[in-house]
Amino acid sequence: MTISKKIEDIISRASFIRKMFEEGAQMKAEYGPENVYDFSLGNPNLPPPEKFNEILRDTVDSCGLGDHCYMPNTGYPMVCGSVADYLAQEQKAPVTDKEVMMTCGASGALNVALKTILDPGDEVLTPAPCFVEYKFYADNHGGVLKTVPTKPDFQLDLDAMSAAINPNTKAVLINSPNNPTGQVYPEKDLLALGELLEKKGQEYNRTIYLISDEPYRKIVYDGVEVPSIFTSYKNSIIGTSYSKDISIPGERIGFIAVNPAATYKNDLISGMAVANRILGFVNAPALMQRVVACMQGLSVEISDYARKRDMLCEGLAGFGYDFIKPPGTFYLFPRSPIPDDIEFVNALKEQKILVVPGTGFDGPGHFRIAFCVDDEVIKNSMPGFKKAIEKYR
Amino acid sequence: MTISKKIEDIISRASFIRKMFEEGAQMKAEYGPENVYDFSLGNPNLPPPEKFNEILRDTVDSCGLGDHCYMPNTGYPMVCGSVADYLAQEQKAPVTDKEVMMTCGASGALNVALKTILDPGDEVLTPAPCFVEYKFYADNHGGVLKTVPTKPDFQLDLDAMSAAINPNTKAVLINSPNNPTGQVYPEKDLLALGELLEKKGQEYNRTIYLISDEPYRKIVYDGVEVPSIFTSYKNSIIGTSYSKDISIPGERIGFIAVNPAATYKNDLISGMAVANRILGFVNAPALMQRVVACMQGLSVEISDYARKRDMLCEGLAGFGYDFIKPPGTFYLFPRSPIPDDIEFVNALKEQKILVVPGTGFDGPGHFRIAFCVDDEVIKNSMPGFKKAIEKYR
Repeated sequence: MTISKKIEDIISRASFIRKMFEEGAQMKAEYGPENVYDFSLGNPNLPPPEKFNEILRDTVDSCGLGDHCYMPNTGYPMVCGSVADYLAQEQKAPVTDKEVMMTCGASGALNVALKTILDPGDEVLTPAPCFVEYKFYADNHGGVLKTVPTKPDFQLDLDAMSAAINPNTKAVLINSPNNPTGQVYPEKDLLALGELLEKKGQEYNRTIYLISDEPYRKIVYDGVEVPSIFTSYKNSIIGTSYSKDISIPGERIGFIAVNPAATYKNDLISGMAVANRILGFVNAPALMQRVVACMQGLSVEISDYARKRDMLCEGLAGFGYDFIKPPGTFYLFPRSPIPDDIEFVNALKEQKILVVPGTGFDGPGHFRIAFCVDDEVIKNSMPGFKKAIEKYR
Repeated sequence: MTISKKIEDIISRASFIRKMFEEGAQMKAEYGPENVYDFSLGNPNLPPPEKFNEILRDTVDSCGLGDHCYMPNTGYPMVCGSVADYLAQEQKAPVTDKEVMMTCGASGALNVALKTILDPGDEVLTPAPCFVEYKFYADNHGGVLKTVPTKPDFQLDLDAMSAAINPNTKAVLINSPNNPTGQVYPEKDLLALGELLEKKGQEYNRTIYLISDEPYRKIVYDGVEVPSIFTSYKNSIIGTSYSKDISIPGERIGFIAVNPAATYKNDLISGMAVANRILGFVNAPALMQRVVACMQGLSVEISDYARKRDMLCEGLAGFGYDFIKPPGTFYLFPRSPIPDDIEFVNALKEQKILVVPGTGFDGPGHFRIAFCVDDEVIKNSMPGFKKAIEKYR
């Protein structure tokens, strides 16, 4: 008995992924990093928007006494106001600084939101495939994550969602554009989901929250628009970050926004300020709060990701891979040519290609390619992708 | 049923403090902020060391592609190495980068450490008076905080500690220099505590960790030295931050260090990397990691706090207040002239002086004065302190 059983368990279950990373590092050492095609991590490779460095410098230059000190746990009111102004337009809802709390990224936001609403045994439903960490986030605060199947194209299956909702359901957690599938939910489905949660909430006489994790909102292609969450359902909460759209994931800056129409809006905001404090975040990093306040609406050069997506999709389609061309994110989630995705991921590894098995995202029979990599990596990996699929013809 | 019962409960219990803050804000609006003497918050008022701005600018200027991206969850190895080099000297122990993890401040560090070690129902013991948030930190991760009395001078009472340790004890959490008392534990007491934990651990056949929360380590006076934790007890963990000694609490940067001699060192470090990730911190803010790597050993001008302490102590002693002159921190924790500290805090409020009742720190019959304020505030508050104590003569 040395560390917590839960943590011990997580470590031992993660041994496959750890092994993969270790082998990847070993391969890079052995063959040279340029000869290993690493698509395993969602670490954005595009530089932040040009204005970022200028704003960062200006912010540092203008730092006065107290500018690195504590501020309200919800963040600088001025920063929350700046986020709110932008959100009001994006969400077509009258968001003000009072509904926004700055957080340590989207992971911080989701943990704070779940800590605020979950009682022991409460369930959180999420469409699968899904981000692997959600189950830990729910469990951290005494909740239980249950996955709900999606349609073959990874769109919401509202019948399955309806069947999964029960008296213990406290929240539905969605992620659109989705990691790992790249899918984006259309407005009509979000409205239908909103109606479902409203109806089920009345049936069970409890508020069922819709939590929208949307760090990829700005990373969409071909004119796709990500619909407003706040106009889809009143008891909704957005948790997101600037990690992916501004390429600053290491700086841990994001926010929570509560729908101004939410029934218990004030309780939620007060509760989130408390949760942010006692979980140890206390507040989002001060300097980066002030920086992102000046970055509203900006993003990395999305056309660069679009080019990578097109290169990858064109190549893989030519070899016979089966996939949904992702309308958003920098992930592609092809079907594995054989049912056992872990075996196929190993076959790709023989070609020095590193990807993540779909099993890790509750999406067995698939694998995830994170194409936030240099164009050269995509180009040079093509022969390997071809050989791997040919092995199973 | 809208938000978690626990969070609802915390909000309603905090109503006294919230009321105090609201009244304080109202008083400042009514009488002018310069006529309200606010000693309620531990928000450092000294500027960061002069070198800080230069290092921050240099760090920003040298930022390359990828410098705001994800790094290992434990932090940049170079930064951990820089912290370890300094710690090795301070702690007189062979600390390396492998035993250090960068965190979002000390609150983040303590939450990560507790998440890593606590199983449901495990107890964490802490000497009282203590920082009010500890009980939430333990509870966040299924643990229970139990307070242990200290001696009248707020030094460790090892008999009381020995009596409190039981088969559920997983950790003892100490904070020296202490918030709210300002007390510093001498080496002989730490060695005796280490022996006690070793003995009790053998008796109950489990590892009992010593967690040292030490953000005030550098804020000490009159040549006082804060002893090494790592030479006091082998299964020890330091959780701390640069918030107070560099005056950057809003930037959320600190670290955990595990004793290189700890029995389960590798499990602890692997577990902490997982806990840091799944709690949503993911990693400490990237830019500030690189900044503090260059700030090792630096601190604000401690003599400024010493001057404030002396002014305050001299004044209050003259009026008949009873207190331990604090060897460290920027807190003074006088005895309330009447048993009911909340009543006395209200009497001070009539004099436009804002302090926190000791009851909030499990130290009833006392009150906390945070003297990290301008000298003028201390000077101008003196007549009010005099009048308040005279009311009860």
